[in-house]
Amino acid sequence: MTTTQPETIPGTGSGWLPGTSTIAFGGDYNPEQWPREVWDDDIRLMREAGVNLVSIGIFSWVLLEPREGEFDFAWLDEVIDLLHSAGIAVDLGTPTASPPAWFWAKYPEARPVTRDGVPLGFGSRGMASPSSPAYAEATTRIVTALAERYGSHPAVTLWHVHNEYGAPISESYDEASVAAFRLWLAARYTTLDALNSAWGTTFWGQRYGAWSEIDAPRTAATVVNPSQRLDFARFTNHALLECFRRERDILHRLSPGIPVTTNFMATNCPSVDYWTWANEVDIVSNDHYLVAERTDNHVLLALDADLTRSLAAGRPWILMEHSTSAVNWQPRNLRKQPGELRRNSLQHFARGADGILFFQWRASRYGAEKFHSAMLPHAGETSRVFRETVALGAELGALAPAVGSRVHASVAILWDWESFWAQDLEWRPSVELAHRRQIETFYTRLWEDGITTDFVHPEADLSTYDLVVAPSLYLISTTARTNIEAFVAAGGTFVSSYFTGIVDSHDTVHDGAMPGALRDVLGLTVEEFGPLPQDTPVQLSSGAVGSRWTDAILLQGAESIDAYVDGPMAGGAAVTRNSFGAGHAWYLSTDFTAEQLADVLVGAYADAGVEAGPVALRGVERVSRRADGVTFTTWINHTDRDATLPTGTVVTAGDAVVLRDDA
Amino acid sequence: MTTTQPETIPGTGSGWLPGTSTIAFGGDYNPEQWPREVWDDDIRLMREAGVNLVSIGIFSWVLLEPREGEFDFAWLDEVIDLLHSAGIAVDLGTPTASPPAWFWAKYPEARPVTRDGVPLGFGSRGMASPSSPAYAEATTRIVTALAERYGSHPAVTLWHVHNEYGAPISESYDEASVAAFRLWLAARYTTLDALNSAWGTTFWGQRYGAWSEIDAPRTAATVVNPSQRLDFARFTNHALLECFRRERDILHRLSPGIPVTTNFMATNCPSVDYWTWANEVDIVSNDHYLVAERTDNHVLLALDADLTRSLAAGRPWILMEHSTSAVNWQPRNLRKQPGELRRNSLQHFARGADGILFFQWRASRYGAEKFHSAMLPHAGETSRVFRETVALGAELGALAPAVGSRVHASVAILWDWESFWAQDLEWRPSVELAHRRQIETFYTRLWEDGITTDFVHPEADLSTYDLVVAPSLYLISTTARTNIEAFVAAGGTFVSSYFTGIVDSHDTVHDGAMPGALRDVLGLTVEEFGPLPQDTPVQLSSGAVGSRWTDAILLQGAESIDAYVDGPMAGGAAVTRNSFGAGHAWYLSTDFTAEQLADVLVGAYADAGVEAGPVALRGVERVSRRADGVTFTTWINHTDRDATLPTGTVVTAGDAVVLRDDA
Amino acid sequence: MTTTQPETIPGTGSGWLPGTSTIAFGGDYNPEQWPREVWDDDIRLMREAGVNLVSIGIFSWVLLEPREGEFDFAWLDEVIDLLHSAGIAVDLGTPTASPPAWFWAKYPEARPVTRDGVPLGFGSRGMASPSSPAYAEATTRIVTALAERYGSHPAVTLWHVHNEYGAPISESYDEASVAAFRLWLAARYTTLDALNSAWGTTFWGQRYGAWSEIDAPRTAATVVNPSQRLDFARFTNHALLECFRRERDILHRLSPGIPVTTNFMATNCPSVDYWTWANEVDIVSNDHYLVAERTDNHVLLALDADLTRSLAAGRPWILMEHSTSAVNWQPRNLRKQPGELRRNSLQHFARGADGILFFQWRASRYGAEKFHSAMLPHAGETSRVFRETVALGAELGALAPAVGSRVHASVAILWDWESFWAQDLEWRPSVELAHRRQIETFYTRLWEDGITTDFVHPEADLSTYDLVVAPSLYLISTTARTNIEAFVAAGGTFVSSYFTGIVDSHDTVHDGAMPGALRDVLGLTVEEFGPLPQDTPVQLSSGAVGSRWTDAILLQGAESIDAYVDGPMAGGAAVTRNSFGAGHAWYLSTDFTAEQLADVLVGAYADAGVEAGPVALRGVERVSRRADGVTFTTWINHTDRDATLPTGTVVTAGDAVVLRDDA
Repeated sequence: MTTTQPETIPGTGSGWLPGTSTIAFGGDYNPEQWPREVWDDDIRLMREAGVNLVSIGIFSWVLLEPREGEFDFAWLDEVIDLLHSAGIAVDLGTPTASPPAWFWAKYPEARPVTRDGVPLGFGSRGMASPSSPAYAEATTRIVTALAERYGSHPAVTLWHVHNEYGAPISESYDEASVAAFRLWLAARYTTLDALNSAWGTTFWGQRYGAWSEIDAPRTAATVVNPSQRLDFARFTNHALLECFRRERDILHRLSPGIPVTTNFMATNCPSVDYWTWANEVDIVSNDHYLVAERTDNHVLLALDADLTRSLAAGRPWILMEHSTSAVNWQPRNLRKQPGELRRNSLQHFARGADGILFFQWRASRYGAEKFHSAMLPHAGETSRVFRETVALGAELGALAPAVGSRVHASVAILWDWESFWAQDLEWRPSVELAHRRQIETFYTRLWEDGITTDFVHPEADLSTYDLVVAPSLYLISTTARTNIEAFVAAGGTFVSSYFTGIVDSHDTVHDGAMPGALRDVLGLTVEEFGPLPQDTPVQLSSGAVGSRWTDAILLQGAESIDAYVDGPMAGGAAVTRNSFGAGHAWYLSTDFTAEQLADVLVGAYADAGVEAGPVALRGVERVSRRADGVTFTTWINHTDRDATLPTGTVVTAGDAVVLRDDA
Repeated sequence: MTTTQPETIPGTGSGWLPGTSTIAFGGDYNPEQWPREVWDDDIRLMREAGVNLVSIGIFSWVLLEPREGEFDFAWLDEVIDLLHSAGIAVDLGTPTASPPAWFWAKYPEARPVTRDGVPLGFGSRGMASPSSPAYAEATTRIVTALAERYGSHPAVTLWHVHNEYGAPISESYDEASVAAFRLWLAARYTTLDALNSAWGTTFWGQRYGAWSEIDAPRTAATVVNPSQRLDFARFTNHALLECFRRERDILHRLSPGIPVTTNFMATNCPSVDYWTWANEVDIVSNDHYLVAERTDNHVLLALDADLTRSLAAGRPWILMEHSTSAVNWQPRNLRKQPGELRRNSLQHFARGADGILFFQWRASRYGAEKFHSAMLPHAGETSRVFRETVALGAELGALAPAVGSRVHASVAILWDWESFWAQDLEWRPSVELAHRRQIETFYTRLWEDGITTDFVHPEADLSTYDLVVAPSLYLISTTARTNIEAFVAAGGTFVSSYFTGIVDSHDTVHDGAMPGALRDVLGLTVEEFGPLPQDTPVQLSSGAVGSRWTDAILLQGAESIDAYVDGPMAGGAAVTRNSFGAGHAWYLSTDFTAEQLADVLVGAYADAGVEAGPVALRGVERVSRRADGVTFTTWINHTDRDATLPTGTVVTAGDAVVLRDDA
Repeated sequence: MTTTQPETIPGTGSGWLPGTSTIAFGGDYNPEQWPREVWDDDIRLMREAGVNLVSIGIFSWVLLEPREGEFDFAWLDEVIDLLHSAGIAVDLGTPTASPPAWFWAKYPEARPVTRDGVPLGFGSRGMASPSSPAYAEATTRIVTALAERYGSHPAVTLWHVHNEYGAPISESYDEASVAAFRLWLAARYTTLDALNSAWGTTFWGQRYGAWSEIDAPRTAATVVNPSQRLDFARFTNHALLECFRRERDILHRLSPGIPVTTNFMATNCPSVDYWTWANEVDIVSNDHYLVAERTDNHVLLALDADLTRSLAAGRPWILMEHSTSAVNWQPRNLRKQPGELRRNSLQHFARGADGILFFQWRASRYGAEKFHSAMLPHAGETSRVFRETVALGAELGALAPAVGSRVHASVAILWDWESFWAQDLEWRPSVELAHRRQIETFYTRLWEDGITTDFVHPEADLSTYDLVVAPSLYLISTTARTNIEAFVAAGGTFVSSYFTGIVDSHDTVHDGAMPGALRDVLGLTVEEFGPLPQDTPVQLSSGAVGSRWTDAILLQGAESIDAYVDGPMAGGAAVTRNSFGAGHAWYLSTDFTAEQLADVLVGAYADAGVEAGPVALRGVERVSRRADGVTFTTWINHTDRDATLPTGTVVTAGDAVVLRDDA
């Protein structure tokens, strides 16, 4: 395997962290799980591996505050000093994702409660109810104490607040959450009339006459008001974000100049709306884990990285966690094959990451994650995994000049967590509707075509893109509708698949025929949905095959590009194209595979002036980072055959190369 | 499509509702979900569609009683007057299926509770615990107020009590239910000794020494006493029926002369024993929804209609709800294809319905059912669905002369909700036992053979039938046993399949060898059950294939008509026939498909003198309604080929015709 | 069917029960379910069947103590006297598996509670929380009263304490259990530091600062500390055993000389560690039920019998319950075919049982088990099942001379309930890991090869065996590791499959590379686990096919016997052999079928000097019991073809024979 290494730092050289001009490399470090003598071994091996940043203290609350209000920092002092003296920077965790046993014993009412009313016990991991006053007070105390003690320590380079907000605790049905929900609703709607209108409480006779009548949407006799459930999801996101802000503000006050992050799980934590979080963190960081048994998991990785980069919106971002090999919580935790951890890491680098960190430094011998891989596995420093880790550290070290460069995309996929939440509620027209799967399908097509893609909120600026794709984006607000129309009117190309633009932000069907938010831009109405029976595809005139869904389309300006030959809508339009202002809007009323989309999207690519990469390089990933006229292009060969790049460079099967172009 | 329309009203002309001689046509109407200006549009379009009856107020409790004891009828006054002035009759709902938010906030103990002890929250739909005193008081108040205000309003033609009793609330494990259960038991059994005997409490040492020791059969360490569970199901039916009676009696007192109904869900609400309800309502009404993905759902519809007609027992009945197209709560909510809503409607008419109504008039924009179809869909009045609705209204209008005519059948299937309840309890000999599937199989055979079928309670008069079928009727009481024996002795033909007549009304095995209730009439005993392994059919001498089940039969008078060639009972009898008095009793000890039953039933048909329709017309439904010498025969072609009727009339694929014969 | 019957009693003739020299034959008897006149019929038919022992009173608490502290023994006096006068011995049950209704009404806090916090109701069967003080007091009272009354009754030959401890009640999360768990932990660990260390509470910040902070491992936000869960399983076993000891000690005191047993469910009750129970009972007894739909259920039966015999460790044991035909709690409760109950019974006899009893004498007409077969079924005394029962009674009567003889084995499989518990916790490397399935596979191979096998605890004496097999034995303590090493060093042959020896008794990974407990004896380390994707087998050099799992093996002394051709570990060792001291240790790093193991184990058999039986007799079971130079060899032909034994005797398909050899 070869990597062409850039030799000088282009641009300003200012890195993603104050005073840093290297790519961060390291992982979660839990010295508290090991005897003191192991620590020295850790330092020695970290240095061998080129580790320059470790995250510590994430689960250390009870060690730092063994009894309520009594602190013990001695061991952490020693760890931080040891790391510092070894030149390893510290990403210091606030331990609020795992309150101590004494907390739970003293404040049982702080326990999160399920929809069914089951209070969740201790002995696992996870925060208290996000709305618990006792939790707020306790977290304020421990974070203040930490910030006071280490806020100015020269080793502390980054604050790592909490851990993966939303997992495993998000919605909680405890009393404090109900009370906070009511307050949040009162702030959002001001009047009960407004709330009753937004929630459509005339349906099933649910009108509220007092704020105190409103409960969390707990398990009921049958389906609960979807608008209420959507708002409870929003409230939960708000409550979690308040927890973050509480800690961040303390850290900003007591540890000025040190950036604060919390690790996102971009596509795996649907209970958090990261669009509302991205601007609250100083640096966006993300945790990513492969779905081991999927053979396209490198494509899903790219999706995750692109989404994280999109959240960062031009600012730096880092990969806070991934794994060197197997995880331990999937059905079959396949190991990563030789070379795979390098490719995974370079994929993140290629898509903009300025840090590549792992969960975890040293594998645990006990607890729920003892079968999770690590940089230093149970098999120790002679193992393949540690050897690959060391090699990766060296390679990333040589890529330091790329720090500060950025990825640019001319294609975007609309992404809205609120739409995920709304669509996942009960009683949708078909269980085959799956927003995530549709996004993956379109993203896979773009990835295979070598097109770098951003993700963008439907209400955000779209003007920098040539092509915007909305794969089954169920919820489109009135603002988003205007935004999309403006984008197309100005010359953009828009591609939407079925079940897009159906409801507004209250999960209320837009007035009139479907799809209310897109009728005008698409130049059609959908008279009726036509979900297909299980495993019953339909034929199209073009020879393509649709599955899962059809629509009864009434063309109102759009032209039919492809039509149904059989199925419930036989004879009707299946794929349409509409001219709208200076641009064009496409509609795909049935479900295509990524393979089939290659043909279906030819016209949309042409409208947008977007060009697919050469078929010969399918499976060879290419992404560029640029800064100050310098371009770093990463090529990663995910196939089992050698590939010859346009430059003539040969990248062997499984290998990767980063090419610098100063032109 | 063509319909031969009768021109004059035969017989007395007295319709199913006082003063009505037309087929009711309309649906649920929820004007409260829409601004006032939409109401006028509704009236205009209802008139265009020929709507003559709408159901209103079903979910309006909180609008009528916004605070406990304070009423606001102004809006409803206006709605009723508007409808009345347009000549549209009102089916006025009592809103007790959805108590207001203030009720739940004030009476949390009224919440239904699951077997696991989870109290069910508000925000959905559904009544309080059927035994809740607070609910009883609140419903009495609102129903009294409604009846006082509208009991004599000329528009009010029918009272629609509650909505679909038993769904989604039936069994409740709250304290009030436990108390009521004890009282019900004391009334049923008088002494604890009688209860202990009926429940077989010597098994597993469950003998009760005090009524207060008896609990609802909540989740336990393992299987709960089946007799107790069966009685709790009976109690639940009783408690729900008491709720209905409470409302009905108020309405009868305050709104004399106006009939009272509540909408059944004949085959979809197994928690209610409609045999005990049918005589309590003034008019039987039913809700029916297709299982969209089943290709034989028109046969299931016929089954439902026949069961509803059987409940009405010669009295008029109406279809209170069905759908114009897709529903929203099935896995894949397929739309109805063009012509399908007409065929569905005419099937109900053919089988005796004097009203064809829909849920719902106008599609909701919000709430849990916003993707449920309507007479007036989101796509509005230009839509296919609305056009078909209008056409249907006209066609039904022309069928008015058939009002008052009745369907007669010479074949009956035994149907007992108690047997369903008992068989569905745990620890039966095989999970392949499915009373419902067996009924569907026999019914399908009869439908395919063009034989109109009644459903009848096993203890009811059977003397009017030539052939009575008991498909896996697990529970047969001693009274029912005598009834069946008398039927056969008098010359009837009886066909029973396996696992019939096993237990008595306490779920206690009849004394002696299986099947205790049928040994004599069948002329055999079953020495042992022989459930088959999964997907392991057996061969019969005749070439037929059995599945799921076999019996070790000891012939005691019966003759073997077909025998097992392989499987656990190889060499033994599989199908038997016994002469009993003047009649014959058949036993099918394995599971046949409806297709196979064609051969198997030849002998039973012959015994009964029942004749199957011509094979050429399979899939073409034919049912007759008669009154005063006039016969209305509906022919519905469910196939994809044209059909020529015996009269020479050609009914094209998908079409239907109603032929009048005054001979 | 023929049985060569031994004619004289070899050896001392002292039977398994004081004063008994026959094989016990009978079953559970519940006269309380029947009118008095039926009892006489029972006695007559028991005598006809040769019944000599029945178990009574198991579910009779409420009849014996109808009100708290008030006793009624009259009916039981009569039953016992009736049996005694008929020469039928009594196995008298203590009825503590089913406390009376008055108990539950008065002590609701004694109800067992699920992990989710649901208290389990009455109306089923099952004990109170094992830690409930009220239950302890109530059981002490009833057992004392029983023992005082019947402790010296000449009919009472055996005490049957409780029923199937652990089913259906094992872990309970009630308050008394939590309190008892803390006390048990304090006794086990003495200090909190020791507990924190054992549980690895530095992981996820779970360190305990007070005993009162420790809860039962109830449902939490995500996975709960596995060491805590493992200890809670141990505690539960302890709490159940304490319940048994409490009763046994009373019986020993008040009924001296009468042995006490409780019926085990050797392989079906994973919540109880029978190694800790075996020495607490005077006689080991077991309940066994076929998994009806498995075609190899006679092999599983043998496994169960061998495990039971291993628990008895050279002492007598009896089969307390099995079924004459179908049970009622499996998905499809297939009946036993003619001859099958005899074969099942003789299998138990062959593997050492001195008693063959059934659940149950007479089939119940009511309750949850009314479809469970019996010696006397619903069909009565003319039935096939009763006739086979009578024949079996006679045959067993003639086998009396074998009483006291013992089975010897030179091959053992390691079996540890703690390893089952630990492996079944969440977040293991693959859902394909299944200790039970692996044991069945190896056992089946040995059974097919005609090799009688013991089961043995990993810390027990192995020196009497030539070959010891550890099929995926995840948990191996340090003591067990030393034990295994000593066995091999002394010349034994050891065969281990993948995922063996991973963790110690705290579920903590052994220090260093995998498999920590076996690195030395196997002469290798496993650098990484290689779980396979679903349904993705791998090829080996030998032509064998592996599935589910692979390992990255680093040979450190062992030789590679077979290697991977493809899959994640292509080129690496798959099967290895290591010389260790005077013995050899084999490692199988992938999953083989029992069929494939025939080839794989050839070398290990050779190392151990173990010889497989002739291929021609595959499916013909052969097991010997010996005493005082006399050998009783049972041959059972499970195939569908006749078999000629080495002696020349022909055993027809489905038949069995017991041959005596006095040589």
